[in-house]
Amino acid sequence: MNPLFEPSFSADEYAGRVAKTRTRMKERGLDMLLVAEPSNINYLTGYDCWTMVQPQALLVPYSGDVVFFAREVDLPGVTLTTHLRSEQVFGYPEDYVEKADRHPFDWIAGVMRERGLMSGTLAIERDSNFYTIRSHEALMAGLPNVNAVDSQRLVNWVRAVKSDSEIDKMRIAGRIVERVMGKTFDMIEPGVRQCDVAAQIYANSIMGLENAGGTYPSAPPLMPTGPGTAVPHLTWSDAPFKSGESTSLEFAGCYHRYNVPLARAIFLGAPPPRLLEMADIVNDGMDVALAAIRPGARCEDVEAAWRVLITRYGLSKATRIGYSIGVGYPVTSWLEKTMSLRPGDTTVLEPNMTFHVLLGMWMDGWGYALSESVVVTERGAECLSNVPRGLRVKR
Amino acid sequence: MNPLFEPSFSADEYAGRVAKTRTRMKERGLDMLLVAEPSNINYLTGYDCWTMVQPQALLVPYSGDVVFFAREVDLPGVTLTTHLRSEQVFGYPEDYVEKADRHPFDWIAGVMRERGLMSGTLAIERDSNFYTIRSHEALMAGLPNVNAVDSQRLVNWVRAVKSDSEIDKMRIAGRIVERVMGKTFDMIEPGVRQCDVAAQIYANSIMGLENAGGTYPSAPPLMPTGPGTAVPHLTWSDAPFKSGESTSLEFAGCYHRYNVPLARAIFLGAPPPRLLEMADIVNDGMDVALAAIRPGARCEDVEAAWRVLITRYGLSKATRIGYSIGVGYPVTSWLEKTMSLRPGDTTVLEPNMTFHVLLGMWMDGWGYALSESVVVTERGAECLSNVPRGLRVKR
Repeated sequence: MNPLFEPSFSADEYAGRVAKTRTRMKERGLDMLLVAEPSNINYLTGYDCWTMVQPQALLVPYSGDVVFFAREVDLPGVTLTTHLRSEQVFGYPEDYVEKADRHPFDWIAGVMRERGLMSGTLAIERDSNFYTIRSHEALMAGLPNVNAVDSQRLVNWVRAVKSDSEIDKMRIAGRIVERVMGKTFDMIEPGVRQCDVAAQIYANSIMGLENAGGTYPSAPPLMPTGPGTAVPHLTWSDAPFKSGESTSLEFAGCYHRYNVPLARAIFLGAPPPRLLEMADIVNDGMDVALAAIRPGARCEDVEAAWRVLITRYGLSKATRIGYSIGVGYPVTSWLEKTMSLRPGDTTVLEPNMTFHVLLGMWMDGWGYALSESVVVTERGAECLSNVPRGLRVKR
Repeated sequence: MNPLFEPSFSADEYAGRVAKTRTRMKERGLDMLLVAEPSNINYLTGYDCWTMVQPQALLVPYSGDVVFFAREVDLPGVTLTTHLRSEQVFGYPEDYVEKADRHPFDWIAGVMRERGLMSGTLAIERDSNFYTIRSHEALMAGLPNVNAVDSQRLVNWVRAVKSDSEIDKMRIAGRIVERVMGKTFDMIEPGVRQCDVAAQIYANSIMGLENAGGTYPSAPPLMPTGPGTAVPHLTWSDAPFKSGESTSLEFAGCYHRYNVPLARAIFLGAPPPRLLEMADIVNDGMDVALAAIRPGARCEDVEAAWRVLITRYGLSKATRIGYSIGVGYPVTSWLEKTMSLRPGDTTVLEPNMTFHVLLGMWMDGWGYALSESVVVTERGAECLSNVPRGLRVKR
């Protein structure tokens, strides 16, 4: 085994995660759980190859070995990046790849039948990007006695409270994005091409720290500029930055697949009063939101604290002000898709939960964004990066 | 409108693509086509924001306006990056985002009913990563009189033959990846961290050319090294490159979402005879494969030419030797998921089809990869990049 490709965590840590998953399976009366989200597979096994473009899945039976199904040619990558033993890994033949008349899940159903995994209640990820309608139809055709139910993002919820080792990884990702933001501020000037700044955001975040190199984040840098700042999820063009315009910057440091995002804004020239005023309000909003984060508070309480404040200024915001973060792959960005800081989310905060608190104000033709990634501690919210808040102005 | 965010092509070009799509719809008797693949949406409209993390879809009725559904907060990005008029664009309220008891496709079905788009045959992308089981169940519940059928990758197939304007974009992406490969060879040395090379691959490809900046490719650089070269889809770690090891490099230049990938291999030190021998065979294999590419030949003919050659050396390869490329987003990499250069694919080659001819030999504990991205012309295969083939050796 090559030490370059050791899994990110010990075999014990992964076994603990599978055990927590099984505890929830037991509560829900699930006999089997089929995990297709790459982030969930990585969380449970460490698997880290760019193979989600083809069907793959981890099967967690309530008892017995977990088993992993992937395209045959990709099996060496499973052995290299996980603690799974070769008898837990099954590769479907090339003959099943992108064919109209058969599907990898036909083959997977066959292996499950051979192993006696062919009855009982099976939870599937019903709203996942990585388990398609065709996957499901093929699996169900091959396992007629299985009762399929929605997993309700079971593994995502297991991921919500991080271990201390995970928090260590996120602290490193937080240091990475903090440095990248500083270098990005330095680089943005009138006449500099947007793509050249995007290039350095990637380079700096993947170089990472001297003793901890980074990897590809789960989303490209979002960096709308000028009127584009009204759009939350715009990337960049090869046009230059212009004097008299602001740019919203939102990107993540990524270390061992743990994403820690950060948003700031920069203005080239003399900012208009409405933007300075918005920056001040949002700054205060961040203070009250972070102050509301503590064990025992509910997700919606955090949003309510923010809302009280901005309402006083005649502002409103339809979108949530944050969400749970952790392990991620494109295209789910850095979302865990569990907890949101928004009205109606009554999840109670616990230590070692992690959130991206994102205060994005997308107005008519302009906008402003500020965020912090935080870990919930006994003492409240602790920011994972340290970058001054407020609008950065370059005159 | 901000000229920074003009769509990549003229309104006429997009109208022509929709017209071609409708021709195929007519042949298949389809009344409506629901397009969820971000690459297909981009192809038909130019839409280019990082929003596929939430449900979104373009509806192409056989007659009448196409309509686009997205999260409400993302609508300004539709206006900014497409030629669609505001009355063609519908945003679902925030209240539908990541909720257990309702789904954006409940709302989308409602709008379709209001517009009378509620009966007939609707093609959906049944094996897409971007139209989930839950999306489909919600849509079908809301449109009980619709007859849903699989699109059979209808838009992907329309994309197969590129316009000259698309080929122009791909030529630029080819120039980009050609430069990036050269700079990557220069940088790989014993002791250099893998992540630092990955960082510069991103930076160089996104900087692109002086007059044509690049964007994020549809997959991270694949750069397995040492024993990792047995694994096709490994990325990198922060360990250093080592003398006496080879590295396979596969990455793309990306321009206006057109990906042009390229694979080469580099060895630090004195390569073992088996690797040099393999490099020579694969080089010859590339010659015969490219020579077999011409209008009128079938996809499988190209693979057969390669197979005859490697069989002579006692080698075999289970995986296809290439596939159609074009517009792409993560996580589908640069695959169009239509034509493959493999036995049984009888698609006839036409001018302006584009392929990644990838000769990856993944052996037991080692491997070698060489590729070219090509456009089919009347005169045969034309490479989109110009980088010397064969194993690059640094002693």
